[in-house]
Amino acid sequence: MITLNMGYKRLDPAYLFSNIAERVNQYEHSHPKAKIIKLGIGDVTEPLPDACIKALHKSVDEMASKKTFKGYGPEQGYPFLRDVIAEKDYQQRGANISSDEIFVSDGTKCDIANFQELFSNDIKIAVMDPVYPVYIDTNVMAGRTGVSYLGRFSSITYLECTPENNYMPDLPTSPVDLIYLCYPNNPTGQIITKKELEKWVQYAHENQALILYDAAYESFIQDPELPHSIYEIPDARRVAVEFRSFSKSAGFTGLRCAYTVVPDNCRAYGVNESSYTLRSFWNRRQTTKFNGVSYPVQCAAHAVYSDEGQSQVKSLIDYYLKNAAVIREAFLSMGYQCTGGDNSPYIWINVKTDSWTFFDSLLNKTGVVCTPGIGFGNCGKTFIRISAFNDYHAVLEAVERIKQSHDIILEDIEYQSKNKTY
Amino acid sequence: MITLNMGYKRLDPAYLFSNIAERVNQYEHSHPKAKIIKLGIGDVTEPLPDACIKALHKSVDEMASKKTFKGYGPEQGYPFLRDVIAEKDYQQRGANISSDEIFVSDGTKCDIANFQELFSNDIKIAVMDPVYPVYIDTNVMAGRTGVSYLGRFSSITYLECTPENNYMPDLPTSPVDLIYLCYPNNPTGQIITKKELEKWVQYAHENQALILYDAAYESFIQDPELPHSIYEIPDARRVAVEFRSFSKSAGFTGLRCAYTVVPDNCRAYGVNESSYTLRSFWNRRQTTKFNGVSYPVQCAAHAVYSDEGQSQVKSLIDYYLKNAAVIREAFLSMGYQCTGGDNSPYIWINVKTDSWTFFDSLLNKTGVVCTPGIGFGNCGKTFIRISAFNDYHAVLEAVERIKQSHDIILEDIEYQSKNKTY
Repeated sequence: MITLNMGYKRLDPAYLFSNIAERVNQYEHSHPKAKIIKLGIGDVTEPLPDACIKALHKSVDEMASKKTFKGYGPEQGYPFLRDVIAEKDYQQRGANISSDEIFVSDGTKCDIANFQELFSNDIKIAVMDPVYPVYIDTNVMAGRTGVSYLGRFSSITYLECTPENNYMPDLPTSPVDLIYLCYPNNPTGQIITKKELEKWVQYAHENQALILYDAAYESFIQDPELPHSIYEIPDARRVAVEFRSFSKSAGFTGLRCAYTVVPDNCRAYGVNESSYTLRSFWNRRQTTKFNGVSYPVQCAAHAVYSDEGQSQVKSLIDYYLKNAAVIREAFLSMGYQCTGGDNSPYIWINVKTDSWTFFDSLLNKTGVVCTPGIGFGNCGKTFIRISAFNDYHAVLEAVERIKQSHDIILEDIEYQSKNKTY
Repeated sequence: MITLNMGYKRLDPAYLFSNIAERVNQYEHSHPKAKIIKLGIGDVTEPLPDACIKALHKSVDEMASKKTFKGYGPEQGYPFLRDVIAEKDYQQRGANISSDEIFVSDGTKCDIANFQELFSNDIKIAVMDPVYPVYIDTNVMAGRTGVSYLGRFSSITYLECTPENNYMPDLPTSPVDLIYLCYPNNPTGQIITKKELEKWVQYAHENQALILYDAAYESFIQDPELPHSIYEIPDARRVAVEFRSFSKSAGFTGLRCAYTVVPDNCRAYGVNESSYTLRSFWNRRQTTKFNGVSYPVQCAAHAVYSDEGQSQVKSLIDYYLKNAAVIREAFLSMGYQCTGGDNSPYIWINVKTDSWTFFDSLLNKTGVVCTPGIGFGNCGKTFIRISAFNDYHAVLEAVERIKQSHDIILEDIEYQSKNKTY
């Protein structure tokens, strides 16, 4: 009898963003003329940089001619792309990463979801709370998280990020083996200094732990003192894997390209503490279960590193950060506590009420979509996340609507809260 | 301590095609002037159909403009592509498949590698021998296959395909739960009739088993009596998942697009034989661990179904089948037994000697690369696979070289066999 992996039954029935989409669809259905402004899901809205468009057209033409046609590429990515990533994203910032430590893929979500496959099922994992749900869900599917009670799994260590600790979690008090860190953080927009990151690297060394460092929003960092990569910390190579994406830097969410860095001295353990290079395991995983990224897309990613590409990407980042500033200023002016939005496209707003209630009131009274914080974990239950990925004028309009309807939103929340059956 | 999934240590250290690539590199190094002809790995050589090129350029232009830019697409694929697949690949052939049962992805290798995640770890799997190594390797990684001894895993049921049974395996004699079938077969090139496929569907119903049907080479079928899809068999929807690809039909190996069909009444079992729809599990897997296929690539796949695209794909298939006929005729004329090559791009040749020895002699005496059958399993140990994916003139030259050097190859094999230390 073909029996199922019952890990899947322990998951919430719907992925957070599908749940949001459903509520938005309901609203659209009952308000067919409303102009909805989506500041929920972190999807970019600006077109691809012109340098990438040119590279795409050129590579498509190569695919049209027998002499220049490309079939299967290396599963790890083409050397032309791995080389430029190693040089420009790492070596030029003083991080000692070589091109054969770079694995090009079709998305950070895929890579960080798949990476846990490399480990035994009895490792202890730690995640920040609030957290990007994929880190947890993929471990639930793998059967690594124990039973769920009141929104938390018994075998996961939750590193709480609250106003009290300025959204910077303490080190775990009992040992953990695999630590998911994300900076600039999704959803809180919080950043990390070199000194704070050093603490985590030291913890990993002392506990033979591994850090999965999600740096998908690295390109939003403006403060020159902040680390862009965990490999800017001495000795991090041994204990950290880093994930980066072209989705939010160059607007590749619909094009699909990312990469993962697995340093060649990054190790994990077998029986009797014998150690193995993690890179060879990931290489085996990718060559067996993946077939590389579309050639034209890799050419577009390569074009991001040209002078023209770099300047166009900078304009994109500036554009979204201008949006972020508008959103943050507006919520601050209405008296909310906010983090993020300066080195990050996300603003994390303390709404001090149930986050789905706020989501519903905001949607119904203004047509603006946010993300309810509870979708990211218990510590998000009175927060919302607002994304700066949208058209500037749409952001201005959203903010204006919210400001004008703020009293009505608050009344509606009070009404909803009184009448809700929990 | 971060401990590894030791399933990976039970794998052969190198993936078959990496092993071949290494030997070819060595040969290239010692014969820098030799013109190597690669008939090993099944990679296409002809450029993309013009209909696809046009669709790519058009969609790249859409990505350049704010009004038509596409960010994240649906993880399951765009409706425009799912609809045309359901209509043209299934409904028009009398197979009752709807668009919401189609999941577009970046490759059949990825999908068939990932699909086993949905099942519990104690299911019994059955594979044909010889077999595409990914089916086995991904189950080894998952820890489902027991220990390895003399090239076979203790918990896998091997369905032997030999000259004696005309490479058509018998039904398993002890119950299995998950059956990997591949038709037209890789590597043997063997095809399956409706009547024979009905036996497997009936077996799956009787044993509450599931068939993973790999139809990546479906477009090579010429005989109008042969089934293109397992869903041409009545009641197969309940017990079969089908995998298809644009790689070998429209030459997308470097572009990356495929799809998987999970019918909405296809079920697997939980505890107490409670049953669940597999489609919801796969949908949860894909929405959590995957982010959809590149938009321009989906537009190119859509163009495959236009009249222009269909006619261009037919030309590509005809081209490779002409190569296949040349290869098969040549080996038949030299006295070898062959299967495949008429409804398949692969020719499976009984060389009656150790397959790596034949591989080495063929490479060293003619510069032609084949795939040693042992790479596909014990039943392939005296076979080689030759792929028809190459330039027609290169194929003619390869065949000419082999014919002219045939005696030298045989002598070399005899010499190698005598001097080899086993």
